[in-house]
Amino acid sequence: MKGGKVSERAENVFPFYVMDIMARAQALEEEGRDIVHMEVGEPDFATPPPILQAGKQFLELGDVHYTKAQGLPALREKIAEYYRCEYQVKVSPERIFITPGASGALTVALAALVDEGDEVLTCDPGYPCNNNIVNLFGGKARPLEVKPGDNFQMTGEVISQAWTNKTRGVMFASPSNPTGTMVSPAQLRDIIKAVNEHQGFLISDEIYHGLVYDRRAISALEMSEDVFVLNSFSKFFGMTGWRLGWLIVPEYAVSAANRLMQNLYISAPTTSQYAALSAFDAETLKILYQRRDEFKNRRDVLYTGLKALGFGLFEKPQGAFYIYADCRAFTDDSYVFALELLEHAGVATTPGKDFGTSHPERYLRFAYTTSIACIREGLERIKNFLAAKEG
Amino acid sequence: MKGGKVSERAENVFPFYVMDIMARAQALEEEGRDIVHMEVGEPDFATPPPILQAGKQFLELGDVHYTKAQGLPALREKIAEYYRCEYQVKVSPERIFITPGASGALTVALAALVDEGDEVLTCDPGYPCNNNIVNLFGGKARPLEVKPGDNFQMTGEVISQAWTNKTRGVMFASPSNPTGTMVSPAQLRDIIKAVNEHQGFLISDEIYHGLVYDRRAISALEMSEDVFVLNSFSKFFGMTGWRLGWLIVPEYAVSAANRLMQNLYISAPTTSQYAALSAFDAETLKILYQRRDEFKNRRDVLYTGLKALGFGLFEKPQGAFYIYADCRAFTDDSYVFALELLEHAGVATTPGKDFGTSHPERYLRFAYTTSIACIREGLERIKNFLAAKEG
Repeated sequence: MKGGKVSERAENVFPFYVMDIMARAQALEEEGRDIVHMEVGEPDFATPPPILQAGKQFLELGDVHYTKAQGLPALREKIAEYYRCEYQVKVSPERIFITPGASGALTVALAALVDEGDEVLTCDPGYPCNNNIVNLFGGKARPLEVKPGDNFQMTGEVISQAWTNKTRGVMFASPSNPTGTMVSPAQLRDIIKAVNEHQGFLISDEIYHGLVYDRRAISALEMSEDVFVLNSFSKFFGMTGWRLGWLIVPEYAVSAANRLMQNLYISAPTTSQYAALSAFDAETLKILYQRRDEFKNRRDVLYTGLKALGFGLFEKPQGAFYIYADCRAFTDDSYVFALELLEHAGVATTPGKDFGTSHPERYLRFAYTTSIACIREGLERIKNFLAAKEG
Repeated sequence: MKGGKVSERAENVFPFYVMDIMARAQALEEEGRDIVHMEVGEPDFATPPPILQAGKQFLELGDVHYTKAQGLPALREKIAEYYRCEYQVKVSPERIFITPGASGALTVALAALVDEGDEVLTCDPGYPCNNNIVNLFGGKARPLEVKPGDNFQMTGEVISQAWTNKTRGVMFASPSNPTGTMVSPAQLRDIIKAVNEHQGFLISDEIYHGLVYDRRAISALEMSEDVFVLNSFSKFFGMTGWRLGWLIVPEYAVSAANRLMQNLYISAPTTSQYAALSAFDAETLKILYQRRDEFKNRRDVLYTGLKALGFGLFEKPQGAFYIYADCRAFTDDSYVFALELLEHAGVATTPGKDFGTSHPERYLRFAYTTSIACIREGLERIKNFLAAKEG
């Protein structure tokens, strides 16, 4: 059919503004400009050698067939063991699903929970795909403003005030993208309490666990068995391109998650699953902990640097690899400011607009997914740009 | 929340009956029984060595990061080239999306096309995930009975008669799963004409192209630019566990497909994409053509054998690796018969119930994804079982 059109649900999935930034950055690089990339939400490190080695060994056999829809039993055992050691919680491997990235975990969880018109409370600012996938399944994401004073996180009070008879559940991420901030233990307890009082579901996005610098990350599973937990081999384990994550579901959703996995994915990539069997080895974890230290150092350099330049920063973010910086000292439109920073300072960042509608024009997200030398260079360039702008 | 429940949309995704067969087969094997597997919709061959080699070489570099959401430009170029050679059609790489398996292609196509309440006409019997994914996105799959006399395929007439003011489009697969039968060129032309007359969309599932034995497979793209084509590296290319497929969309859906890829998957598995760059090499294709010959021989052995045993067979199926056999000579419930065949003959098959509601009790699907020796052994066992049953 000539002149066809796509579904309304697809029309309502908006493009990411950072794509414009990245396209322009690429164009500038092709012209010979040097760009400091602080827009990228992906670790710059290569996959740890023991994981690569396991992947290559698996490929030697050539037997790259489907796995069970739920994932390799041995990998689910290892994840269960990781929860025992890391969080002191017992999670049956029967409740663990190996998914194509945390994207797959998010999709399965939402498909298992959301019916037409169901309202899901999400964080604003937050990861934009959350809202989009809720809406793709006919639900209605309702982003709630989360405030600097609450670590840019939900609170039980915010949830209870927002709850309507259409509300079915809540999603949050700790550490958060774009803010890197975390829920406190008391805050998490209150969130769970509020959700339980309304007999709703809770989806806890824990994909940045592991990349937490000054405290221990708490899993929602430590406080409740009846939560959906998303996690990923992408960020802490350095396996982005392998497309591998996991989903932990309450007992009552095991059958549904299995049927959804079969229909939506058949199974997660097989080589990635075998490679990930080495992700929890002591040798691998040693490398990952070194990288975590490096991320912590980068954060400290970037945080101190941005503060010195006059960006508005709150408490130092505790995790992930993001700083969400208030730019009101320099602009009343952070998107325009991001374009200027790119054009005139050669620094790429992600504008607040990509993360919601609560004062996004105030903020830029800086990702410290680049070396300390590059971060220092970026800070220097911003300093010169701001000086020139004032002058 | 204790005692939570899953969404209605998830409840309506039914489990596959073949899972019961597979679980029972596994239990019998654990008891020491030998089972001939003809239930499995996955080639038994390992991934061709040149593809494995390319995968290993890529892993040597360790740079397993995300790709662009749409997939590696070089791979999309190769696919475009493949369409030029194989089908004499020009497809711009801009219209090609690399997806996590054909499952991903199906999901993106349906999310791009289906709004709440939209009716999509599908084939009965057909691949059950098609209906389930339509329904997950709030659409309403309407399976239409397709008949042996029409190659178990849609016709323009069937489509026109079934069209209502809720109907938005049509999906079909040629070769078909579970029947292995194909649309004729005239039938395809009529299908496209009927869909165009109603200004609907057409999704052509071509994942079994390549595995076609007595004729050339025709792509819907040879007759129209405005179709959605699903294809896969799983079946012909022997890459099931790599989870890699592709989707070709009309111009008007390029932007939507890009946004959906970003949100639902970020990108397809990177190592799989690099490995697939070798899928179209002469060396690889030579291996694949040998395998195709082997599949053809298997088909002939199985077809002749089932016919001799008294199964009701129509024209010899032209593609995929399935024979859909009418069992009415032996049973009035093919599911019960499948369980009997497994228990008493040690032969696993897939019951018609998994593929729809149009006389499924008449049919079993036999997959020739096992060696000729195993197929002969399976036929012998069925013969003995039927003799004992009669005697």
